[in-house]
Order: sequence, then C-alpha cells, then structure tokens
Amino acid sequence: MKTLRVGLCGLGTVGQGVLELLQKNADLISLRCGRSIQLVRVASRTEKPQVDLGNAVFSTRIEDLLEDADIDVIVEAIGGSDTALSLMHAALKSNKHIITANKALIAEHGNILIPLALAANLYLGYEAAVAGGIPVIKALREGLAGNQIDRISGIINGTSNFILSAMSQSGDDFDTALQDAQKLGYAEADPGFDIDGVDAAHKLSILAALAFGMPLHFDSVYMEGISDVSVEDIQYARDLGYRIKHLGICSMDTKGLSLRVHPSLVPSGQMLANVEGVMNAVQIESDALGSSMYSGPGAGALPTASSIVADLIDLARGNTGDMYYNNEATMVGIEKIKTAYYLRIPAVNKPGVLAEVARELSSHGISIEAVTQRERNASQDVAVSWVPVIIITRQVMEDTMNKALASIQASDHVVGKIMRIRVEAGDTHKHNVG
Amino acid sequence: MKTLRVGLCGLGTVGQGVLELLQKNADLISLRCGRSIQLVRVASRTEKPQVDLGNAVFSTRIEDLLEDADIDVIVEAIGGSDTALSLMHAALKSNKHIITANKALIAEHGNILIPLALAANLYLGYEAAVAGGIPVIKALREGLAGNQIDRISGIINGTSNFILSAMSQSGDDFDTALQDAQKLGYAEADPGFDIDGVDAAHKLSILAALAFGMPLHFDSVYMEGISDVSVEDIQYARDLGYRIKHLGICSMDTKGLSLRVHPSLVPSGQMLANVEGVMNAVQIESDALGSSMYSGPGAGALPTASSIVADLIDLARGNTGDMYYNNEATMVGIEKIKTAYYLRIPAVNKPGVLAEVARELSSHGISIEAVTQRERNASQDVAVSWVPVIIITRQVMEDTMNKALASIQASDHVVGKIMRIRVEAGDTHKHNVG
Repeated sequence: MKTLRVGLCGLGTVGQGVLELLQKNADLISLRCGRSIQLVRVASRTEKPQVDLGNAVFSTRIEDLLEDADIDVIVEAIGGSDTALSLMHAALKSNKHIITANKALIAEHGNILIPLALAANLYLGYEAAVAGGIPVIKALREGLAGNQIDRISGIINGTSNFILSAMSQSGDDFDTALQDAQKLGYAEADPGFDIDGVDAAHKLSILAALAFGMPLHFDSVYMEGISDVSVEDIQYARDLGYRIKHLGICSMDTKGLSLRVHPSLVPSGQMLANVEGVMNAVQIESDALGSSMYSGPGAGALPTASSIVADLIDLARGNTGDMYYNNEATMVGIEKIKTAYYLRIPAVNKPGVLAEVARELSSHGISIEAVTQRERNASQDVAVSWVPVIIITRQVMEDTMNKALASIQASDHVVGKIMRIRVEAGDTHKHNVG
Repeated sequence: MKTLRVGLCGLGTVGQGVLELLQKNADLISLRCGRSIQLVRVASRTEKPQVDLGNAVFSTRIEDLLEDADIDVIVEAIGGSDTALSLMHAALKSNKHIITANKALIAEHGNILIPLALAANLYLGYEAAVAGGIPVIKALREGLAGNQIDRISGIINGTSNFILSAMSQSGDDFDTALQDAQKLGYAEADPGFDIDGVDAAHKLSILAALAFGMPLHFDSVYMEGISDVSVEDIQYARDLGYRIKHLGICSMDTKGLSLRVHPSLVPSGQMLANVEGVMNAVQIESDALGSSMYSGPGAGALPTASSIVADLIDLARGNTGDMYYNNEATMVGIEKIKTAYYLRIPAVNKPGVLAEVARELSSHGISIEAVTQRERNASQDVAVSWVPVIIITRQVMEDTMNKALASIQASDHVVGKIMRIRVEAGDTHKHNVG
C-alpha cells in the first residue's frame, strides 16, 4: 500500500518528539498499519535544526510543505494561535489532512475548522490535544461510541495537579510549589494559562463536544483556578477523608449541559483522588459501561507524539470516521449546579458562633454533613482571636449557597474571607464494591 | 449509507445486553456512525425469549442467520466452546464478519480463526473478550500503535479481585469470600476457571498477542490461582505497604516474552493496588507514552455489550484494520523471571531462627529488603510453639529462590509450608512525582 507522506511544521518539544518517534518505531509502525509512514518535509523557523531529520527535507518556509503535492498530511506542531490557525486553513485548502496537539486552537476555532475538514473529506486529528498521550478521545469517539455519556470528570492539567500534589505531600504553600513546578519545567514562566484553568477549559470543551456531539462551547466553561487553595484547606480536607484536585467536569442531564473547571474535594478512596503529580486522568460515566477511567502522562514530548502518531496511524489505516452530529443543548450555568461544599469560615473564637453559622445554613435549607472547629495556625495576622470553622455540607444549588454565604460573610463573627470548594462525590468510580 | 445488518446468536446475559443497548441507543449510534445498525435476526435455543426483540426475527436455528444473505455480521454470544467455534467457522465460510466476547475461544483457537478472517477480508472483533467494557484492545491496537509495548500488568478477572478485596476489607477467609462472591453472582458455582487463573490467562494471552504482534500463546502462560492466599498474608502485606492482587503480566525484553498469572504484592500507592471489587484495570508500559492505565467494569451484561457494540460501530465505520504481523519471540519460563518475593515462613519460636533463614537466603545471593517476625494467631493447629517470619526480598531469579526455599523448607526449624508471593514493584504507574 502507498506510503503515507507527512509534513511536520514546528521543531519544538512536540515536533521533536514526533520526529523521534517516527524514526525510532518506523518498522513497527509499518508492520502495524500495513503501510509505511514517512516524514518527507520538516519546516521550522529555526535555521539549523540540531536534530537528525533522516531523509526529510528541511525548510524554513511552511509554504514549501503546502505546495508539495506529495504530502498527504500536515502535523501542526507550531503551537500558539495565529500562525497555526493560518496553517490549518491553508492545509485544508491544499487538500491535506491535519493532525495537531493544539488544544487552544481546536477549542476556540474548532467550530470553523472541523466542519471545513468534514466538508472537504479531510481528517482533522487532535487526540494529542487532550490529556497528552492518553487515548481518551479515541475512547470517547470509538470505544464508548455505543454509550450515552452522562458525565466526564478529569484531571486534565498536569501543572495544576503537580502543584496541588506537591502542596499536599510537602506542606509547601502555593507559591513555593509553583516555583518548584517552574524549576522542573512543569510550569511556564507565565503560569496563568495552567493555574487559572484556561488550559483545562480548552480540553474540557473538546471532550464535551465529542461526548455530546455538540459544537465547542469554550466560552461557556465556568473557570476557577487553584491559586486560592491553601495548604490548610488541603490538610483539613484530608482529615475529613478528601483530596483536593483541580477538575474539569462536564455533565448532561435533563436540565442541560454544564461545563466547569474548579478545585474540588474528591473522596480519598476514589481513583481520581490518587492521581498525583503531572499525571492526567479522565473518568467517564456512561449508560452501558458505567464508570471507566483513563490515566497516564498528560504532557511531554513523547507522550504527545504518541497521540500524534496514533492519529497518523488511524489516517494510514483509513480510520477517520468522525462522530460530529451537531446536537445542541441548553447550557446550565454554575449557579444552577448542585454540589456539596467544603467551607472554611474564619470565625471569632467564642461560644455560639458555630451554632449561628449552622442556623444560617439551615435557614437556607442547607444541611451539614460534617463539621470541625480547628485551632488556627501559628500565624497571628488577624488581630482578634479566631478559629477556622470547617464544614462539609450536603448537596445544594450554587445560588442558594451564594445567598447563605453572603449572609454568613456579613456576620460580625466572621473575621476573614470564607473559602468555599465544591465537593464532587457524585462520581462512582471507587473501584469498590458494597 | 447502507444499514449494517446484525445477526445475534445467544440470548443469555451478554446477548440480552447487546439487544438492550442496540435498542436503547439506536438513534445515537446512527448519528455517531452515519449509518444505522440493525438487529435483523436473533437465534437462541430457548423457545420463547422473554425479551422484546423489536423487528428482529427469532429463530432456534443458528443456520437461519448464516443462510440469510442480508446479514453482514454475526454477534457470537453463545459462550462455551464447541458450538461457538463451529459457528465462527461457519460464519467465516458464509462471508460474514464476527464479533465475540468469547475469550476462551479467541485464546485457544485464535491462531486459526484470526488468519482465516484476515484471508477472507472479514472482521473478527473481540474487544469484549478482555476486561469487559474497558476499550483496552482498542488502546493497544490503535491508541498506542506508535509505541513499542514493554509490559502489561492487569487485574483482568473480577471474581478473583472481588474475593481478594473482600478478604482485605472484611478479614473474611478465602472460603467465606468465595461464598459471598457466589451469592452475589460474581462467581460461578464451579469457580475454578476464575480463581485458578485460567480466565485471566486467556485474556492475558490475547493482550500479549496484540501488544507484541504474535500468535496466541495461551499454553505458555504460567498460572497460579488465589486459593492459597490467606487473610494473614493480606494483613502482613498491608503492614509492609503492599496490597495483594491477582495480576496477569506479560513483558518483553531482550531475553524474550514472559506470560504469567499469579497473586502479587503491589505497593499500596500504585493505582493498580487501589482497584477493588469486580473492577478490572490494565496498566500498559510503553516506550513513548510511558505508563498508562485503563480501568472500569470487567464484566456484566451492559459493559460487555458496550464493547460488542463498539466493535459493531468500528465495522460500520470501516475501521477494521488489524495489526497482526506475525512476530515471534523466545518464551521466557517462570524460573527465569526476576522479581522480589514476599515469604511467610512458619518457624520455631526460638532465638537464632531468623538468623539461620537470613544466612540461607544470603548463601544463595538473596538480599532481604524487610523482615518482621510476628506473633502467630490464636489458632493452635501446630503442636510446637512457632511464629511466622515475614520477609520481603530484593529481586532474584525464580530458580535461585526455588533452591533457597528448598533448603529453608528442609530445616528443622521450619514447621509448615512456606508461602511465597511475588512482589511486582517493577511498574512505575504510581501517578506520582519525585
């Protein structure tokens, strides 16, 4: 069968990973897909690449790839937005398939790009855009294609998970953990994209579009980052039997679709609670299979290349069926989401305060699941003597909680900002019986 | 596009699950694969099925399905061996694709059936044969197709995992846990197939064949069941930081391929150690991706149907590329496998015994990682006063360990059979950094 001829744009981390993997496993890949996959051209703005390109022709002009009629597919490994987007449009116009790891581009421009590719009968592969090397897009698109998907919750940003894991394991505060992540190359110099949840929201919107057959709804994702989570919260949560994880969650029910990215308390016994460091994991709840989970490295040159090469192999084998079916649903805003809550209320250390808080919650119909009143830490930054009151509530609608918290926050007995973190006990992937 | 027309053989648990799922999600499936999948005929030896067959024609003759030229694909949900095998051969002769959940059949007859199907350009789908609804065959065949696979270790028999989990959680002994599993429908009346490791060996040989592009080597799988694992072993292991799991493991290195199914100590912090009850999980180590894990329900009507319908959807979409490439490798026997060991040595309770055991191990070049000498339990079934000496060794070749244990077992100070369980610390899927 005819060789699949590849043009690679970009020789950064991802591009070099693709190059390395296609070279290293060339024979294996040929055996597995019954035809060879050959890198014929590489384009990069770097004048002299310090890597062995094999038989591939190097160019500093992207146009050389587009103009080469022998190239079947473009691997976009430029990253960023503008140039990559232009490249995608140009590739489609040049009748070339595209494979990319660019989550921002798919999340923000997929509603244009995907229909364009479908109309042109071209493959647009983006397995690498979500959860790095974990084949979770394939699981949704194919492995679980007979299932109605109800909910997806995932640890889909390795930087945030690394920071929360480090805070949990070492007791370091957020800033120290962030600096460690930066030293280790797990966080960018400007980490906002990761720690504020934008990257996770990009990935979540892609998963939701596939799961529910819908256009991408990146703009509808509710986002909260991890920078307000304190070491104390992590410790209190642990004492109550929870871990704090930064989750991307999408769920569909009769009210509609909700999309949200925020820190969450997850019961310690659940698999998702035990995903540490830069690892990613995606848990899918679906009607036939129930709860299944997919975990592994969410970033890095070779894990990302693993997904890009899997897309190339799919293309080589002719496995390019999409499952775009243009469904639509009402979007459910965060204020209509029902979850349990963890509350940390810095309160004056005197009798009756806890009773007052409980009364206020109760007056809004909010039940308390667990409560502990802790000695505060050594820091003396608040003038009056106070203790953090830690409460886990039962499930309640977010807007009801907002009203209750506004009342409690206004009380004379509350001496600082109330911390509130949602508790996600709704998933059932305990891997446990009874 | 033309409807994919399905004939279903068998209306037991699996067959009814397929029927239910194809009916319930018919519209969704059509949308997702761009053509409809229609059940046109159902065959079962049961005269009057108590289920709604929709528009499907019922028959007690399997031949009616084979003779129907309109049927594209046969779903084999008969189970067992002889009839199912005849059906497969007949289906291939009748130019029909086949989808099955029958692990025994694929493991024991796949070397005939798979090449026959390939030669006839027919699809033989068996995603449901391993790990129930978890799309792990798809992950190996497609998602990780760019990777060289190094090792797979999996909890692939839900019955055994349920029993070990129950023993661990409740402190019940093996027989009680087995009876509970039988009451709950998680174990057969004759549970040998599951608890002796045969079922896991079937599945492991299928995973290995896909991972390494080899024929099926069911006969080469080393098998040990779980019936010798005691509650005490589970407790001692936990105290030392391990869980006992029944694992299927295949690994390839320069010496060759090893295939083994046996109880294993897994470090408590690893994801695999935390898969409980009837859940399954498969962990794959590969060169580009590193360690990834796939977990979920390993059995049951609808999870199994989820995989069968996924195979139907692959067929409907034309995604039937195999990765059979007829590789071969030397088989490495269990005696040449290097692992660490957990040893429970019932020894006379007097000074110097531990030193003697340590000396004997040392004389075979075996180092000790950890040792504890326990008060024995209340039971007085051994006449002399004795204690179990618990040892975790460093890695050593199995045949060296066999020699050392033969010497130790022969000692006057050892009063009962030595228990030995392999320790699998080799996998790296801790989902942890640093």
